Amino acid sequence: MDILIKNCNLIAMSESRELYEENIDILISNNKITKIDRNIETKVDKIIDASSKIVMPGLINTHAHIGMSIFRETIDGYKLKEWLEQKIWPMEDKLTEEDIYMATILSSIEMIKTGTTTINDMYFYPEKIIKAALEMGIRMQTTRTLMNIQKDGSARISELNRLIEEYKDKYNTIGFNVGIHGLYTTDAEYVKKCVDFAEQNNLVVHMHFCENTEEVLDIENKYNKKPIEVLKELILNTKTILAHSVVLNKEDIDELSDMNISISHCPISNLKLGCGIANINYMLEKGINISLGTDGQGSGSNLDMFEVMKFTALLQKGIEEKPEIIDAYEVLKMATINGAKALGLENTIGSIDVGKNADIIIIDLCAEVTQPINNVFASLVYNVKGTNVETSIIDGKIVMENRKLTALVDEKQIFNKAKEIIERIK
Amino acid sequence: MDILIKNCNLIAMSESRELYEENIDILISNNKITKIDRNIETKVDKIIDASSKIVMPGLINTHAHIGMSIFRETIDGYKLKEWLEQKIWPMEDKLTEEDIYMATILSSIEMIKTGTTTINDMYFYPEKIIKAALEMGIRMQTTRTLMNIQKDGSARISELNRLIEEYKDKYNTIGFNVGIHGLYTTDAEYVKKCVDFAEQNNLVVHMHFCENTEEVLDIENKYNKKPIEVLKELILNTKTILAHSVVLNKEDIDELSDMNISISHCPISNLKLGCGIANINYMLEKGINISLGTDGQGSGSNLDMFEVMKFTALLQKGIEEKPEIIDAYEVLKMATINGAKALGLENTIGSIDVGKNADIIIIDLCAEVTQPINNVFASLVYNVKGTNVETSIIDGKIVMENRKLTALVDEKQIFNKAKEIIERIK
Repeated sequence: MDILIKNCNLIAMSESRELYEENIDILISNNKITKIDRNIETKVDKIIDASSKIVMPGLINTHAHIGMSIFRETIDGYKLKEWLEQKIWPMEDKLTEEDIYMATILSSIEMIKTGTTTINDMYFYPEKIIKAALEMGIRMQTTRTLMNIQKDGSARISELNRLIEEYKDKYNTIGFNVGIHGLYTTDAEYVKKCVDFAEQNNLVVHMHFCENTEEVLDIENKYNKKPIEVLKELILNTKTILAHSVVLNKEDIDELSDMNISISHCPISNLKLGCGIANINYMLEKGINISLGTDGQGSGSNLDMFEVMKFTALLQKGIEEKPEIIDAYEVLKMATINGAKALGLENTIGSIDVGKNADIIIIDLCAEVTQPINNVFASLVYNVKGTNVETSIIDGKIVMENRKLTALVDEKQIFNKAKEIIERIK
Repeated sequence: MDILIKNCNLIAMSESRELYEENIDILISNNKITKIDRNIETKVDKIIDASSKIVMPGLINTHAHIGMSIFRETIDGYKLKEWLEQKIWPMEDKLTEEDIYMATILSSIEMIKTGTTTINDMYFYPEKIIKAALEMGIRMQTTRTLMNIQKDGSARISELNRLIEEYKDKYNTIGFNVGIHGLYTTDAEYVKKCVDFAEQNNLVVHMHFCENTEEVLDIENKYNKKPIEVLKELILNTKTILAHSVVLNKEDIDELSDMNISISHCPISNLKLGCGIANINYMLEKGINISLGTDGQGSGSNLDMFEVMKFTALLQKGIEEKPEIIDAYEVLKMATINGAKALGLENTIGSIDVGKNADIIIIDLCAEVTQPINNVFASLVYNVKGTNVETSIIDGKIVMENRKLTALVDEKQIFNKAKEIIERIK
């Protein structure tokens, strides 16, 4: 299908274009962006009038557990350990494959309706997660979560390998990461195996790292070394996304900056779980690639990446007592092109450029909380809510138009099913 | 006009009711809540079906400068001093009375459409601000900003006195605070005069206090004393709302807790301006009344109090590294009944109780970012956006129904006029 988006106010997030351009047309042929110009005249299947609307790349969420939608707001008032041990783990044990499928449909609805087009996930029953993502049209990198503390880890690597064999090159929108749960839940030998597997298959490692003080102590007790030393020894130069990375001092960050590392910064989850605030500002100074994540809804509340952008900018300004740092455009990069770089997908997504896959969102800024527009980038970061996204295109396919999903899914029925699941297992 | 709200899921924020009740009806006669019961049968002018909706008191914003809507997102990338001296002050000098009226209409639209029913304001041209508030139906406490550094302060007190004489008891929805700009912009003698004026007129003092380190140094240089000592000497036991109060240590807070003080916590503005994070958690421990504010849009971005609630809870959990503190119901109190207490209006607004003024909002939780609902209070704090507010009643009058304002105002025209103002003065 060919789509022509007319009269965009374009924020392409592209190094080869202006930061902001008006009256631009974008031609999409099949799943690719084929032309970006003024006044494109050509016969297409569909024209979208984006006059006075913002058009930008879809947002890329680099860390979540999207099967956890059903656990939204179960933590309030609990200490982390109690919440996990008394609430989440006993419930997770009761989850069926069908539950995970349904929870992932709910998360996919949420992501599409708040402007996310790509998700980097880590959970279990990956085939059901893939099924849901394909039905909803969301772009996903996924994994079988790899750990060997409670269960035999090699079976999980085999499972991931089988998945890759089955789905490899079958769908444009499905890819894989090597999701190692964390150093504190995994032995050194097993981490090495996972890293080797990533290298052999040219995949990115995706791992929780230094989320809170307790985890750091666990790693130190387990390995008799600082987490950063363990990381360097085991990961070497393998391309890796580290989620969280809150409990790191400047020396640790200096070490990170020599590695092939991106950070998935999840500020909302980090605050909610009482972990603290990652020193993103210093990481940026050191040239580390910062992308953004929501984490699962159990801790992150929801998957609205616009909220994550707002928290990201404000926390650094506030903590550093420097209002001038982390400008809005920098944050938009984190939520788009930096996410693509973190996933190793910077040649296919993350910006609006000819030849890239068409992952595009259209946003209406004509709302009472955004007007007047004095700075379009800041409006997006500080005042736009996910629900201001009107239309979303993923891999050249319209997945939402004027707030209506194109997938045949009854949203209220999904909400009811999600409620039934949590009622059954709690 | 009599209104009957049927089948509420009620969060009354009342000490005499359950925290959460289902299938409740609320009868409003003229501007008062006259009955709260199950299955109320009576003839009324208007029935609102609130089945499966949340009904709660309207939100109370205890600190803003709502004439600043036109300055939204002018600060991004600037240092505070540069922003004020190079951008805001020169622009403010060019503002006409009509500009302030228009900017206040825009802010009123924003507040009503995001669930705020009462605003405690501080700006200039108060008659124009009152005119706009009356036209839009928002409840407001306002002032002529009092300071005597640049201009003669006594003229301003006279102006405030004249306003009070004119508007006193004329409108249910308009009241006054004694808005002293701050200790750093006001002499001791003048502060005393303002405080005396507040005492004579039984009004609440509303003042910026210890917003950032620079202000603290200014106060220390000016008075040769710590800000808390100056405050105690000048304010004594007069009922006061202190906006911000970020740069206070525990000893300062101990001193505050002996006074007749409420805090207006403005976390978003405080982060955006690089001020830091107020120690709300310790203030709560000391029994200080905490209410919430957005500040003006120049620093606070927008007037959505749901965002302020989310930041309030998350910042304390994150900074204190205690996920169990500041539960969602506590935050809802800050945004409702605590705000009423701060303003000295706890007998008329802030909760849904028989005899109180009918300031009520109706919220739809059936959205992709809130479902399933596992904790209704946490859903409101962490996942509801102002735009989930469907219907709003202020002083017994429906000001918004199903997202449509009842005031005769063309929103797009207001957006355009706001743009014209900022283009003219910048």
